Amino acid sequence: MKRLGFAAVVVLLLASGLFSQNPSAQAARVWRQAHEHAIVQEFVELVRIPNLAADPANLRKNAAAVQQMLEKRGVRTRLLETAGAPPVVYGEILTPGATRTLVFYAHYDGQPLDPKEWATPPFDPVLRDGPLDRGGKVIPLPPEGQAFNPEWRIYGRSSGDDKVTIMAFAAALDALRQNQIPLKSNVKFVIEGEEEASSIHLDKILAANRDLVRGDVWLIGDGPMHPSRQQQLLFGVRGIQTINITVYGARRELHSGHYGNWAPNPAMMLAQLLASMKDATGRVLIDHFYDGMVPLGPAELRAIAAAPDNDEALKREFWLGGTEGGGKKLLELLMLPSLNVRGMASSRIGAQASNVIPSTATATIDMRLVNGIGPQEAVARVVEHIRQQGYFVVNADPDEATRLAHPKVAKVEVEAGGYSALRTPMDLPISKLVIDTVESARRPVIKLPSMGASVPLFMINETVGSPTIIVPIANHDDNQHTFNENLRLQNLWDGIELYAALFSM
Amino acid sequence: MKRLGFAAVVVLLLASGLFSQNPSAQAARVWRQAHEHAIVQEFVELVRIPNLAADPANLRKNAAAVQQMLEKRGVRTRLLETAGAPPVVYGEILTPGATRTLVFYAHYDGQPLDPKEWATPPFDPVLRDGPLDRGGKVIPLPPEGQAFNPEWRIYGRSSGDDKVTIMAFAAALDALRQNQIPLKSNVKFVIEGEEEASSIHLDKILAANRDLVRGDVWLIGDGPMHPSRQQQLLFGVRGIQTINITVYGARRELHSGHYGNWAPNPAMMLAQLLASMKDATGRVLIDHFYDGMVPLGPAELRAIAAAPDNDEALKREFWLGGTEGGGKKLLELLMLPSLNVRGMASSRIGAQASNVIPSTATATIDMRLVNGIGPQEAVARVVEHIRQQGYFVVNADPDEATRLAHPKVAKVEVEAGGYSALRTPMDLPISKLVIDTVESARRPVIKLPSMGASVPLFMINETVGSPTIIVPIANHDDNQHTFNENLRLQNLWDGIELYAALFSM
Repeated sequence: MKRLGFAAVVVLLLASGLFSQNPSAQAARVWRQAHEHAIVQEFVELVRIPNLAADPANLRKNAAAVQQMLEKRGVRTRLLETAGAPPVVYGEILTPGATRTLVFYAHYDGQPLDPKEWATPPFDPVLRDGPLDRGGKVIPLPPEGQAFNPEWRIYGRSSGDDKVTIMAFAAALDALRQNQIPLKSNVKFVIEGEEEASSIHLDKILAANRDLVRGDVWLIGDGPMHPSRQQQLLFGVRGIQTINITVYGARRELHSGHYGNWAPNPAMMLAQLLASMKDATGRVLIDHFYDGMVPLGPAELRAIAAAPDNDEALKREFWLGGTEGGGKKLLELLMLPSLNVRGMASSRIGAQASNVIPSTATATIDMRLVNGIGPQEAVARVVEHIRQQGYFVVNADPDEATRLAHPKVAKVEVEAGGYSALRTPMDLPISKLVIDTVESARRPVIKLPSMGASVPLFMINETVGSPTIIVPIANHDDNQHTFNENLRLQNLWDGIELYAALFSM
Repeated sequence: MKRLGFAAVVVLLLASGLFSQNPSAQAARVWRQAHEHAIVQEFVELVRIPNLAADPANLRKNAAAVQQMLEKRGVRTRLLETAGAPPVVYGEILTPGATRTLVFYAHYDGQPLDPKEWATPPFDPVLRDGPLDRGGKVIPLPPEGQAFNPEWRIYGRSSGDDKVTIMAFAAALDALRQNQIPLKSNVKFVIEGEEEASSIHLDKILAANRDLVRGDVWLIGDGPMHPSRQQQLLFGVRGIQTINITVYGARRELHSGHYGNWAPNPAMMLAQLLASMKDATGRVLIDHFYDGMVPLGPAELRAIAAAPDNDEALKREFWLGGTEGGGKKLLELLMLPSLNVRGMASSRIGAQASNVIPSTATATIDMRLVNGIGPQEAVARVVEHIRQQGYFVVNADPDEATRLAHPKVAKVEVEAGGYSALRTPMDLPISKLVIDTVESARRPVIKLPSMGASVPLFMINETVGSPTIIVPIANHDDNQHTFNENLRLQNLWDGIELYAALFSM
């Protein structure tokens, strides 16, 4: 299996090379092959600067380093600031006569970490001759002039998420400049330092600099590649809303012998309530749950149909004997809104259980949202469904009078931080241009109308008014958000070519 | 409310006195009124002997004290022993020409405790002038010849559960002997010391002494009175069987954005499975769940109809706006088998929840059983139901191959210690005799075909072959099994009269 996988990757890499007909990408490759040592050196120095939210002084050092990297490549930069937030590095190359502005997004901050979990210190980056979990050993940087094996990896916090993107931006600019390939568009950069802390100040900074950061498209340089190692373009994200539902039995746990069959059991009530929400195939039965969904257009449907189907391999990996969705494939199902029970609890189980009728039962549910269904709307539909099941719905712990007055009481807590989906149509002229450009550089390309996960891109869209497309370059197995984060060199090499092509489109 | 409750109790006590037409009970009252001081003194000394399972030497002292108490009243005693168990005190009064043998059961051991939770040391009994939770103060024993207020209470471990029964036996025997009231039956005693440790050696001891301990009826002197303070007779107990059901999703928690709508969610699967087991009124939908139940006879149905209905008061106490059972009252519902979710758990909830599809979900369920449905049969019906819902059922953690081969896998763990119900028909001649005798002494009497809770009385029935009837005398608010256990003196007084009547029937 592993040998086959490796062979497939090799074929893919060759294919990718053979099909690259984009002159900027071709120039970037030649330039990169001659400068691997310098690129890796500069990248290692960037990864070396600690970038945790708890360490604002070092975050500021990262911003300064990024600013300097861009300035060195002829980008005019400034820091966009707001109180209490790390600065956003803004940069621009204004092209005389350009009718199009491209905004490239990345972030320089990293996920919180526990150094004890790391094989080597997170901010003391090392080169390994392969993935650590397959025995990759620390090796010295080869001397200048000697090629790097593209399967080697650099280990350090944010090597994959998301400093590789910043390095790819810089090296791509170098390649274009050295080859005197002219830009056709204005190219702007928005490189923030608060992404791993939910970008809580970003909308404020963007709103204050709306005209500066507006573009025909925001290209989001973040996230991992497809597990098949193919390039992917993601035209959207799902929104999200999380709620907690608690139902009530007696005010205290009751003896199941003395009161069973008579006192309502909230665990069973919750089971019945949850069961009323989905059928056996996973389809949501809540009235109007799917109403208002913006349907996929022909371009999106074609993209889904053309995307690789790894479902059987995933089933084997996850030990799944079956799936939901009535036979639809994963990628189709991710285009729909979902209702997922994150967890549920009532009293205790197994050896900790006692002979009681529980007093309460709670489920935490997340809903993934798609274009056309906002978080408040989704919550309202769930609440209405709960009412239809005979519940009196409250939003705080019900008191004695409320519980005595209603046979069935449910508390619905709506968690803060819910937001809408965002999906950029794939047949917009700018979408087509991005697709064509990426395909000219990195064929084959998996194009997805939306990813299944949620990222608050709606905020960029609402505040700035620009469509967004996600262009990830990190390896899928980069351990982002956990220990031993790493970057596979080939992903950086490919990323440089990709961004060279995108800058010059 | 409290004044009214007290007034009602007074009326009841008067009524009880007025209606007592049983000469043994009447003689016992007169005798008790003249000997309250001595009775309380002897009782306090019995409660003073520590009686915890962890302290076998003191358990043996309890057995010796009980033996001595009985011998003093002309009971011939011996200790029935088996290795590793506290002795059973066996006693007998053989009545020449008797055609009936009555066996009286009690236990001298007490529940484990934490002395720090007690207001006064558990084995240093004190008299209080009322319940501790209503401000009852420690008072000295009044001098001999001065009456005790019947609402005074004695605090100490096992004062209510179950040494009060042993004291009532002894004082009742005194009263009968002093009044030269002859016995008509053989009277035997089985007083064990392992009840609070699940009587794990009792069946062995009984089997080894089968002929000695056989009787026309076993009268179980244990447990509390009805909350209304009326005497009750319980002709049965429900059986019990506990199971754990676990259902499976992916082998690890999956990101709900990347895999939701596709990867099966075991929390939802469990909810659907549980929901399939009961309807909205609480009726169990599992095929054959109620099959084979021995129906209640006319005597049992009359008893249920005549029993007091406290349901509305209980609903207020428990903050219940409604109940299960389609309008049936609690006592009717306790005569049916039940299926109760003790607890359920899947991943985490609320602030601890993460954006995952859980990997497993587990529910712990207890089933209360009635005559005609054994624990194995009940389990088999549940397992068959789970199969009917499409599950492959296993009894240990399923491996990769099993999970890949079946879309739905459920592990059913059957907990050890399940046992059958036992219900003595209320129209047996011996049942009628007990009812008539108790009603002649302590009218009105609540007669219940079964209690809702579970006690392994089937073991006595299977090993000895005698029918059992439970005759409790302790106050319902005696804090049995917890700290500050206590006995209300009136309950001892009434118990003495009751057992005097039963000994001489």
